[in-house]
Amino acid sequence: MLHDPALGEVLLVGAGPGSADLLTLRAARAIESAGALLYDALVLDEVVDLAPRGCVRIRTGKRAGEASMKQETINRLMLRLARRGLKVVRLKGGDPSVFGRSGEERAFLEAHGVKVEIVPGVTAASAAAAQFAFPLTHRAESRRLVLATARLTDGALQTEGWDGLVSADTTLALYMGRDAAGAVAERLIAEGRSPATPCLIVEDAGRPAAQARAADLEALGAAMADMGPSGPVVVVIGAVTAQAKAALSYASPPALRRPGLK
Amino acid sequence: MLHDPALGEVLLVGAGPGSADLLTLRAARAIESAGALLYDALVLDEVVDLAPRGCVRIRTGKRAGEASMKQETINRLMLRLARRGLKVVRLKGGDPSVFGRSGEERAFLEAHGVKVEIVPGVTAASAAAAQFAFPLTHRAESRRLVLATARLTDGALQTEGWDGLVSADTTLALYMGRDAAGAVAERLIAEGRSPATPCLIVEDAGRPAAQARAADLEALGAAMADMGPSGPVVVVIGAVTAQAKAALSYASPPALRRPGLK
Repeated sequence: MLHDPALGEVLLVGAGPGSADLLTLRAARAIESAGALLYDALVLDEVVDLAPRGCVRIRTGKRAGEASMKQETINRLMLRLARRGLKVVRLKGGDPSVFGRSGEERAFLEAHGVKVEIVPGVTAASAAAAQFAFPLTHRAESRRLVLATARLTDGALQTEGWDGLVSADTTLALYMGRDAAGAVAERLIAEGRSPATPCLIVEDAGRPAAQARAADLEALGAAMADMGPSGPVVVVIGAVTAQAKAALSYASPPALRRPGLK
Repeated sequence: MLHDPALGEVLLVGAGPGSADLLTLRAARAIESAGALLYDALVLDEVVDLAPRGCVRIRTGKRAGEASMKQETINRLMLRLARRGLKVVRLKGGDPSVFGRSGEERAFLEAHGVKVEIVPGVTAASAAAAQFAFPLTHRAESRRLVLATARLTDGALQTEGWDGLVSADTTLALYMGRDAAGAVAERLIAEGRSPATPCLIVEDAGRPAAQARAADLEALGAAMADMGPSGPVVVVIGAVTAQAKAALSYASPPALRRPGLK
């Protein structure tokens, strides 16, 4: 179906990793001109507050004690708001094209004649690397960066393909990895990755309150349990993380803990 | 060596994929307050023009007919400018932590007592996906995104590790892949990836003048030769690229060509 201008439009916008100043200028302008704003729980209030007075604001993701909206409900809601002729901004943490369901939401909306635009964002791995002072690739140590999740649609652990991630020159950034990190570490070691591979668990990457904890691959599960993160987590696995340190330049420097240091 | 405030500071800043409005707010502010700006050839004039009057501006990368500065020369230059007490902004296309040598530059500068901060940016794969309307991951089709280059430090083709990238549920974004795409395609097919895997060659991702060309993996080398790109290229390999189309929303819509369409 071709786009019908009367049906409004939806922008799937990357909010980046958290802090409002890590939005792109294009994303900030989209929010500032939104007629309706749908936002994940991971999006900070300081970002939502950029929306104009009178903008319809709907939180789609869960915070403690709340239920999340189902994807189907979110899709129908975006469609209904667009059909009112509103400029609908669907705001997602990170980049909408990376684990952000942009393909599904776009397909649904376009099938109903609604125009869709995507505004890219900074993904969590980039934010973690910038904040904790390590590169994701390095000419001598890492030629590849893999962004992956550990869970399948049904919640089961992804069982295949880990053998392709054992090379020492691969950096693996595991998204949404809080519960699965230990199991992934076991699997990688079983497939041949060195148990001594340096890893970094980063909670709330890109936010002033970010925290990181270093561990080797063998101790990753235990380190996660000890850290007990409650915010979003990205786990970076690879030699490059050995360079990580707490950034010197933040007003409230993020915390970095190494094994043995509390 | 600890940071000496008298030695100035260097910010390694991600310029994002091109257009000035794909800078983060933090990056834009860094440029606007720079005392010295070193920038790659890939950074557009509209971004460089954000620097204040009086800012020292130095282009480090080559454009047609010019020689690039050596990395060692760039390092020394940043150090010299920082020691003058200037706020030095080193501006890189995309994200500094992804194929941006941030690790090497940081190590050099910190070894000389200069404070380093990194500002993350939107990487080219995210920009390409947003602009040409396909996701990089998809729950049903792609669980992993791999960012890779094909060349080693000495210019030779990376020969190892391609066997880990043949799974149909892996999206591979090949950076700086203009000359090596055909050879990489051959290698992936030899390792077992389907010759019919959809691919998208994207030139100037994130810029208004972006162009894309679709091809299957088997025809990737020929499609690249036919396209003859002169700008920076990212090649995306994977089922998700079958969704790609020219964006509807740009003032000058980027071009997308499919096989058989000229």
